[in-house]
Amino acid sequence: MTRYRALAEELARSIQAGVFRPGERLPSVRQTCSARKVSPATVFQAYYLLEAQGLVESRPRSGYYVAPHPPPRLPEPETPSRPDGDSRTLDVSALVFGVLESAMQRDLVPFGSAFPSPLLFPLSRLGRALATSAVELDPWRTVDDLTPGHAELRRQISQRYLVDGIEVAADEIVITNGALEALNLSIAAVTRPGDAVLVESPCFYAVLQTLERSGLRAIEVPTHPREGVDLDALEAAIGRHAPRACWLMPTFHNPLGATMPESAKRALVELLAAHDIPLVEDDVYAELHHAPKRQPPAKAFDRNGRVLHCSSFSKCLAPGYRIGWVAAGRHRETIARLKLTSTLNTNVPAQLAIARYLQRGGYERHLRRLRATLAAQQAQYLDAITRYFPDGVRVTRPQGGYFLWLELPHGNDALALHRQALEHGMSLAPGPIFSARREFGHCLRLNAGHPLDERADAALRTLGTLVARRQDRASPDGVA
Amino acid sequence: MTRYRALAEELARSIQAGVFRPGERLPSVRQTCSARKVSPATVFQAYYLLEAQGLVESRPRSGYYVAPHPPPRLPEPETPSRPDGDSRTLDVSALVFGVLESAMQRDLVPFGSAFPSPLLFPLSRLGRALATSAVELDPWRTVDDLTPGHAELRRQISQRYLVDGIEVAADEIVITNGALEALNLSIAAVTRPGDAVLVESPCFYAVLQTLERSGLRAIEVPTHPREGVDLDALEAAIGRHAPRACWLMPTFHNPLGATMPESAKRALVELLAAHDIPLVEDDVYAELHHAPKRQPPAKAFDRNGRVLHCSSFSKCLAPGYRIGWVAAGRHRETIARLKLTSTLNTNVPAQLAIARYLQRGGYERHLRRLRATLAAQQAQYLDAITRYFPDGVRVTRPQGGYFLWLELPHGNDALALHRQALEHGMSLAPGPIFSARREFGHCLRLNAGHPLDERADAALRTLGTLVARRQDRASPDGVA
Repeated sequence: MTRYRALAEELARSIQAGVFRPGERLPSVRQTCSARKVSPATVFQAYYLLEAQGLVESRPRSGYYVAPHPPPRLPEPETPSRPDGDSRTLDVSALVFGVLESAMQRDLVPFGSAFPSPLLFPLSRLGRALATSAVELDPWRTVDDLTPGHAELRRQISQRYLVDGIEVAADEIVITNGALEALNLSIAAVTRPGDAVLVESPCFYAVLQTLERSGLRAIEVPTHPREGVDLDALEAAIGRHAPRACWLMPTFHNPLGATMPESAKRALVELLAAHDIPLVEDDVYAELHHAPKRQPPAKAFDRNGRVLHCSSFSKCLAPGYRIGWVAAGRHRETIARLKLTSTLNTNVPAQLAIARYLQRGGYERHLRRLRATLAAQQAQYLDAITRYFPDGVRVTRPQGGYFLWLELPHGNDALALHRQALEHGMSLAPGPIFSARREFGHCLRLNAGHPLDERADAALRTLGTLVARRQDRASPDGVA
Repeated sequence: MTRYRALAEELARSIQAGVFRPGERLPSVRQTCSARKVSPATVFQAYYLLEAQGLVESRPRSGYYVAPHPPPRLPEPETPSRPDGDSRTLDVSALVFGVLESAMQRDLVPFGSAFPSPLLFPLSRLGRALATSAVELDPWRTVDDLTPGHAELRRQISQRYLVDGIEVAADEIVITNGALEALNLSIAAVTRPGDAVLVESPCFYAVLQTLERSGLRAIEVPTHPREGVDLDALEAAIGRHAPRACWLMPTFHNPLGATMPESAKRALVELLAAHDIPLVEDDVYAELHHAPKRQPPAKAFDRNGRVLHCSSFSKCLAPGYRIGWVAAGRHRETIARLKLTSTLNTNVPAQLAIARYLQRGGYERHLRRLRATLAAQQAQYLDAITRYFPDGVRVTRPQGGYFLWLELPHGNDALALHRQALEHGMSLAPGPIFSARREFGHCLRLNAGHPLDERADAALRTLGTLVARRQDRASPDGVA
């Protein structure tokens, strides 16, 4: 395939997947050239082709825009969640484990999984970096690279922030056993048992489990399935509850896929700073943006070290290596000490290997390929869902990550559907595991991080049928 | 050197180091043959040589015994600790960090370090195992080897228990980020904030830090510097405080080096079982026995899954790899779930590498060499201490591990001595960091896990002088 056709196909998939919406401006020719390392001619040819296909339209002296297209049969969810506004202790961990453990068999189609396909990662190239690091290991590194972690790896991470225009000193970074440890240390650093913490509704189940385990109270804040947390509601909750921390996922939210607009992220950081509330920012999907443009984290707007920015290499480069970090701002010292008394240190050869891999280059090339694959897979999943699922279903079009969030017509019980799906050889992540009050009983998170092969396609078709049947039974006109 | 001379030298060092005490029976010829894989003739020759040197004596129809020798100039500490018997919340972490962080510079002579020399480990052979594991990594392992951990590694660990006659099913084992995570998960699994926990006095500072961080109360139990925790006192404390857990290090205790006799370990497990109190057993130095015979853990006497046996490869094989485990008995499920919500998983390539190393053999050979080296180093340190330290100093003769515990004459302030030692280019671990009430102000833990090279020898001589000077100042007859 020629370059321009490849580029046009990729953009077409992004448009179909909702990454670029009708009426939105496409990246400029110059932006695209520099992001893709292609010539202007290639970009123009790609845009001409898309124009000929009716997918984009040019506007003189302005650029290329996504053409209006007929509303898709299955619309996006548009209603923000409506939690009750109370703060509460939690009792959901057993439900979450029950669901997750039932879905752990490898032969299931992994719609309920939290991981993308491990085949998407450069594990053998990374393995060679690890091999070299391991064989050449200076024994004293095992003593010197204690928490906060290997200096060169922290420097490389600091550099990546800088490329995005964010100043994070290497000294501010503490290496952790994956992002989950970073998040746990962060919330431990800024709270004490009994404190209330602001979270999204729905939110990643591990947030709820951590709060439950730590004796913290959750305040669920209304969250829009595309735009993320509602700042007015957040401000009201601050006034009502005097929370001690805020734990959010402002970019490619799990499970919604929502991304807060830049202006909202800035306003969020300012609002929290005004109330002296630290923000624990989970940003593990940051690298998985489908469009060329990266979404800045809330950390980008942090002026006084109140944002604890947590991420890892597990979702974008090195699954199983368990290398994450927190850019901990003013809490760096507390975090390092918590880490020293809880897990002491992080695997040294793996830290060296990732530092070596980042130094040698190739990471950007891998990420471009990974992003394109995930965007394409999302388009395929959306297409299949549109074909197999009944009217009344709503589905998100996230701009990054690999999760789709489905709102099923009322009458669908996601927990029952989950059990039924297991019998049909697939796992699901039912809505209630993402909620302190077991809400979202008619919602599902679907993993689009695995190729939509024949088996997965057949499973989606079965799932669509199961949903339609439940709907029929629930509806008064249905044939039960 | 001939084999028998090498064996004789090793035994002589063990006798000098106090591993075998005057009047104690040496291992039988048959035991020694099988433990060392040498012929009976070699063992006999070694014993004849030791007899000729006056170090051992034979008793007809009974075997070889360590000859009585004149009491060493610096005796062992013999007084058990006398904590006040109260239960208390903790406030020692800042002191501990202050001391540890001041001692972190690489150019210091590491008497205060918790780690042995990293040069004692087969890091390049292990690195080759890691290289192979990394390059041949099946990507699906990164998904399948989630907590409780890589099945083959758990099987290998289970096998090592079995060789020692302890039945621990692979299913009971959860792989962790080093022993410290295993210990933290264990104590979290069996307590809630506010609970009281039985610990030794003195005890490893990380125990105190974990209890402080977790809002737990400590009950310090009298502990003998050679025989470990006092069971009568333990029983009294149980009656008085209704503790929820017991956290001990019955073998090669840190910092004392004490090892509970087998009968005491058995009685400990029975006593705790009678009161339904779980035992968190820290056994990280288990492999580092100086004498041929292995010390069974308390876990060996566990009949009903109440002992959570925590260990790791960090001190005996793979520093920096952060691979530990807990054999969690009846708490296995709770521990696995705590791990899933705190650090999710443990580095997969490192788990595979250690499993591969254990499979290929060579571990026993490495351990024999490591044990001999540590025993020899301990003898050298004891010898130097005897030469350089003044009368009135007492020093332990542990049968394993690499820590010496020194009781200095009263008038010595270990925290002040620590600061003074830093100025002289060496670190120390002063007694108060091992105590909830900052006791043991006249005690030191000294790391004998690094070769006693010229620099270390000179540092020991300086330290001896500093101790003698403080003593002189304190004594009424001293020349200030």
